[in-house]
Amino acid sequence: MSPSPIRVGLVGVTGYTGMELTRLLLAHPSFRLAVVTSRQEAGQSLSALYPFLQGFPAGDLVVAAPEAATLAAACDLVFLAVPHGAAMGLAAELLAGGCKVVDLSADFRLRDRAVYEKWYGIGHTQAEALAEAVYGLPELYAEAIARARLVANPGCYPTASILGLYPALAQDLIIPEDIIIDAKSGVSGAGRGPAVTSLFCEVQDTFRAYNLGAHRHTPEIEQELSAIAGRPLAVSFTTHLLPVNRGILATIYTRLKDPALPFERIRDAYAASYADHPFVRLLPAGKLPEIRFVRGTFFCDIALVPDPRTGRLIILSAIDNLCRGASGQAVANANLQCGLPPGTGLLQAALVP
Amino acid sequence: MSPSPIRVGLVGVTGYTGMELTRLLLAHPSFRLAVVTSRQEAGQSLSALYPFLQGFPAGDLVVAAPEAATLAAACDLVFLAVPHGAAMGLAAELLAGGCKVVDLSADFRLRDRAVYEKWYGIGHTQAEALAEAVYGLPELYAEAIARARLVANPGCYPTASILGLYPALAQDLIIPEDIIIDAKSGVSGAGRGPAVTSLFCEVQDTFRAYNLGAHRHTPEIEQELSAIAGRPLAVSFTTHLLPVNRGILATIYTRLKDPALPFERIRDAYAASYADHPFVRLLPAGKLPEIRFVRGTFFCDIALVPDPRTGRLIILSAIDNLCRGASGQAVANANLQCGLPPGTGLLQAALVP
Amino acid sequence: MSPSPIRVGLVGVTGYTGMELTRLLLAHPSFRLAVVTSRQEAGQSLSALYPFLQGFPAGDLVVAAPEAATLAAACDLVFLAVPHGAAMGLAAELLAGGCKVVDLSADFRLRDRAVYEKWYGIGHTQAEALAEAVYGLPELYAEAIARARLVANPGCYPTASILGLYPALAQDLIIPEDIIIDAKSGVSGAGRGPAVTSLFCEVQDTFRAYNLGAHRHTPEIEQELSAIAGRPLAVSFTTHLLPVNRGILATIYTRLKDPALPFERIRDAYAASYADHPFVRLLPAGKLPEIRFVRGTFFCDIALVPDPRTGRLIILSAIDNLCRGASGQAVANANLQCGLPPGTGLLQAALVP
Amino acid sequence: MSPSPIRVGLVGVTGYTGMELTRLLLAHPSFRLAVVTSRQEAGQSLSALYPFLQGFPAGDLVVAAPEAATLAAACDLVFLAVPHGAAMGLAAELLAGGCKVVDLSADFRLRDRAVYEKWYGIGHTQAEALAEAVYGLPELYAEAIARARLVANPGCYPTASILGLYPALAQDLIIPEDIIIDAKSGVSGAGRGPAVTSLFCEVQDTFRAYNLGAHRHTPEIEQELSAIAGRPLAVSFTTHLLPVNRGILATIYTRLKDPALPFERIRDAYAASYADHPFVRLLPAGKLPEIRFVRGTFFCDIALVPDPRTGRLIILSAIDNLCRGASGQAVANANLQCGLPPGTGLLQAALVP
Repeated sequence: MSPSPIRVGLVGVTGYTGMELTRLLLAHPSFRLAVVTSRQEAGQSLSALYPFLQGFPAGDLVVAAPEAATLAAACDLVFLAVPHGAAMGLAAELLAGGCKVVDLSADFRLRDRAVYEKWYGIGHTQAEALAEAVYGLPELYAEAIARARLVANPGCYPTASILGLYPALAQDLIIPEDIIIDAKSGVSGAGRGPAVTSLFCEVQDTFRAYNLGAHRHTPEIEQELSAIAGRPLAVSFTTHLLPVNRGILATIYTRLKDPALPFERIRDAYAASYADHPFVRLLPAGKLPEIRFVRGTFFCDIALVPDPRTGRLIILSAIDNLCRGASGQAVANANLQCGLPPGTGLLQAALVP
Repeated sequence: MSPSPIRVGLVGVTGYTGMELTRLLLAHPSFRLAVVTSRQEAGQSLSALYPFLQGFPAGDLVVAAPEAATLAAACDLVFLAVPHGAAMGLAAELLAGGCKVVDLSADFRLRDRAVYEKWYGIGHTQAEALAEAVYGLPELYAEAIARARLVANPGCYPTASILGLYPALAQDLIIPEDIIIDAKSGVSGAGRGPAVTSLFCEVQDTFRAYNLGAHRHTPEIEQELSAIAGRPLAVSFTTHLLPVNRGILATIYTRLKDPALPFERIRDAYAASYADHPFVRLLPAGKLPEIRFVRGTFFCDIALVPDPRTGRLIILSAIDNLCRGASGQAVANANLQCGLPPGTGLLQAALVP
Repeated sequence: MSPSPIRVGLVGVTGYTGMELTRLLLAHPSFRLAVVTSRQEAGQSLSALYPFLQGFPAGDLVVAAPEAATLAAACDLVFLAVPHGAAMGLAAELLAGGCKVVDLSADFRLRDRAVYEKWYGIGHTQAEALAEAVYGLPELYAEAIARARLVANPGCYPTASILGLYPALAQDLIIPEDIIIDAKSGVSGAGRGPAVTSLFCEVQDTFRAYNLGAHRHTPEIEQELSAIAGRPLAVSFTTHLLPVNRGILATIYTRLKDPALPFERIRDAYAASYADHPFVRLLPAGKLPEIRFVRGTFFCDIALVPDPRTGRLIILSAIDNLCRGASGQAVANANLQCGLPPGTGLLQAALVP
Repeated sequence: MSPSPIRVGLVGVTGYTGMELTRLLLAHPSFRLAVVTSRQEAGQSLSALYPFLQGFPAGDLVVAAPEAATLAAACDLVFLAVPHGAAMGLAAELLAGGCKVVDLSADFRLRDRAVYEKWYGIGHTQAEALAEAVYGLPELYAEAIARARLVANPGCYPTASILGLYPALAQDLIIPEDIIIDAKSGVSGAGRGPAVTSLFCEVQDTFRAYNLGAHRHTPEIEQELSAIAGRPLAVSFTTHLLPVNRGILATIYTRLKDPALPFERIRDAYAASYADHPFVRLLPAGKLPEIRFVRGTFFCDIALVPDPRTGRLIILSAIDNLCRGASGQAVANANLQCGLPPGTGLLQAALVP
């Protein structure tokens, strides 16, 4: 592998994305976890915090308090796995200190500060950093990511939605104004904070929609889809909570520009778009994605289903929200920023069952 | 209560709908379970078959083989909880024997024999019985049900979908040609047959769409929605499998005829439609239905969500697929056929958590 | 039923036991829920708090702040569903105000104040009330409960354990010094407080033991088993967390005094003990209890399994921790205190699946 | 790694252990999956059978019919993942053909043919192969395994039980006649056959004991524990079904020979026994194992809990039944048989959550 490992830091190790990053970094051939931080848990070893890390060398790492100077000195690249609002200032400091940064929060995803401030309800203090941030969807923006100092790691729902729609929109197959994204997510997407609504007994053996018309991933999806379509568009985006740990399935309803277009042409467009991107798997005709088949992986599984009676094209897109939708994608972005192939350390088979 | 109880029979006690019917009939003030049948389990007591019935008088009932003559002699009304194809002949015999019948299978739901034969792949041998069958959705057809000898109990997905759409379609608020029903169901909807696809390890901690473009409830939904709309329509109907025992949530996307229509007008239309139907609960603004809040009940919970940016109206409709979507609705139909209020014996609070 | 309903109050409506009490009281023929209280939720209707109560008359009840004087004036009997420590003072005030009380907390379960103070870590301020409290296990103490003003409603684990062991201990069949209770509980037993350890993603698809050697139900179990055995005994009691909403299964290992005792004699002892107690179901030989078969019910299902190779008798005991293990038992106790049969309003079949 | 990869075959790829073996072999540095077989699925590619293998080179492997000659020619070592009874003849043929064999069935686990025939109800036709088979628990028998042509891969419950008890029994700390193993397993242990008892709706949100006094792993556990203790012993062994995909937790109750033995001495005995076995993790005092922390891994996590009031030592042992309890252990055995360190290709962190 690389002669000397790339030193990476992880700010915010106590949440689910921090936990997943830790898991992925253990298996990475070129990154070495140099610093992990957590304000509450500083002082104890990683394996005391995460019993599943007992027996791994990284388990002996002692959790530090998050300080930009220390991180910048000890790391080539830092992952920020902290809540929105908390990331922006730290990112700027780390950039100033010479570090590359992958920010898993929403702080640098929305190019328009006003949109950010409206949806997230806080001021954006880092206009300069925002201006240089690159949206980190490797299949679409690999070159820009490779040159970026600061990558805004996409949200989980946007990742599933954009990858599902990209070929159809980019190749002008569907009507941009008529898109519905019906998305369903596992509970880890709500984070590890102690909230009644995330309790086992409030989620198990049930199902519900939530945040209709108000989900913060809406402007992010629309920003990116508008950029692909070349004009502003609005989508109907609904989110539901699945009683599963991980995974997102988005069922996307679109209207074909030409209802008579042979289905093979649509499939070919998708196959061509993702020909060089092995982590997007276009399923064979007749197969539909399942959350478990991407569990713990960086894959995005996509199926296309024509609905000739209504002129619609239905697109199903499945990812693991913690891996492809957060930490795995962060690793892919870091790989690109460090000159490695994006999938380095990410080829794992799903844990089934 | 009624001075002498109404004697009811249950054909097909071994499946989940038979099990649920048994549970509901235990609590019914006017029906007395007189005969239960099962070809495989004949000879043993109900409580041997269903341990949860130990200690209830009905638990001592001995399961009989299904014979029309015996059933007709011993019962005023018979519930058929057998697979499609197996119900139609038996229903005709029971009618001939003087029994009323509620058929929980699909055999009498589709008025057009040819449509039935196309979607279910078998011939329909009971044209006469089909001609007199009434579609058993109590909120829409109470009067006809009350006069019917034979009731075709609706499918679970159609129940959730039609109740969700009825006011909007009947009052001409939405464009009938632009309806998408994204439905999610618990696993009991697949029945109790031993199939690999229904195994715990194939369903737990995962989620998937299934049967896209091919689900047999499609023609049933379209038949009823077309009747309401007054003209033939086609819907996009997709089904997904939730890792829960019971429950359906349908997220329905519609397009308003007049996007400028005040939302209050839409709510009022729904409130008026269901004013006399207490088992359809229109949720207060801001509340969304959850499967657990209708678990084990006859309620259908509905929420309306405007999507002004796209001109859509999103309708959420939740039921318990085994109770409202099958056995509870069968009891409600039997109530009507026997001159009782439809909700007799059906007012139970959900088991939460 | 009773010519004028008995007015009952419920203090602490926001937790799972309060929720379950509400559900059970809706179906009760003689109790009328007159007052419900919650400090945080005062002012809103019950149905706003619990959407599954929409459509029930009790749903219109407005949640009040908990005040002893108001409760005492408006209620004949009050259920206290508040944390230990918070119940004791309120119970004394209500007794002084002329109310009967069923306390679902642990405050009056341990007859020895010092034991209470040691295990619960707080002082006991109500020695007088403690002295008159009766331990509310209806199968064992119906007469005393019927005369009691204050009933200490048993813990969930003790209920399953004591009912499982009572006949064997009372009839001197087993060695009191050699009892192991390996108990497994659903997550609702941990309450509705927002704790990371009760989050869906920390519980789902996993299993763990907890609180070994330190569970507060240990002294309660030992107090009651010692009373039955007629001498002090210590048990090995371990608790595990199941990824289910409700239910406890206790697998109890005992050693027979006479390993040669015919198994029929043991069964007969159990059958005799519970002959007049229909809510304890002794399963037929070869059948084992399952949590789902008691879900939502007041039943305790018991199976006896001889282990002739080791001279042990294995006892399996299953209950619903929220119903039999808390709120259902509270209703049974209130029934007895009010002169009603203990099972009044509690005969419901399990919701399966 | 090794200059030319070791060619391995997998007979019986359609079950859960076959699936798990496939997953593990993908990540193995020295083994190359050369042949996979399945009678029913012959002719299709592995990735058609297992969608989660799309994109992996092994996914293109075409499933073959199981023929000993072909397997022997193409493979250095073959894994048998077929039901008991079906393995024994095939194993003998493969040995004759010059292959090494790891048999995941029970056919070669019980050294005494009569015991096998009594518990499994079929005749054992391969006395010669049985005589040379080595019981494949790497921590106990690494040297013999390294020399073995045929390894009998242990059952899942025996693996958790024996690893939990080995140090205490071998070092004479507990009374061999007083052992109770209360074990709980995920549903994948029941295999992938379509059985009603394994359906989602029969397992989800419930819990039950099963097969009490009759589980086939009993003689296997007793054979191995007797060998360690140096004299025949009988255990009380009970099994329960958890609503989880994977994982076993065994709660083991033992009685100390010397109740006054300082707990540190017991811990030290365990630490010494497993000092050179990094895949058995003795948890720090105060920590208890959880199924999720070994999910998908080869680890066995063990905690020791003294119960001074009763003189018992409680041992908790957690494994992943499919990985450590079946396929992972099979890989470890194959590693040893091929001269590799046992953990080769098996160091993975658990997928949490």
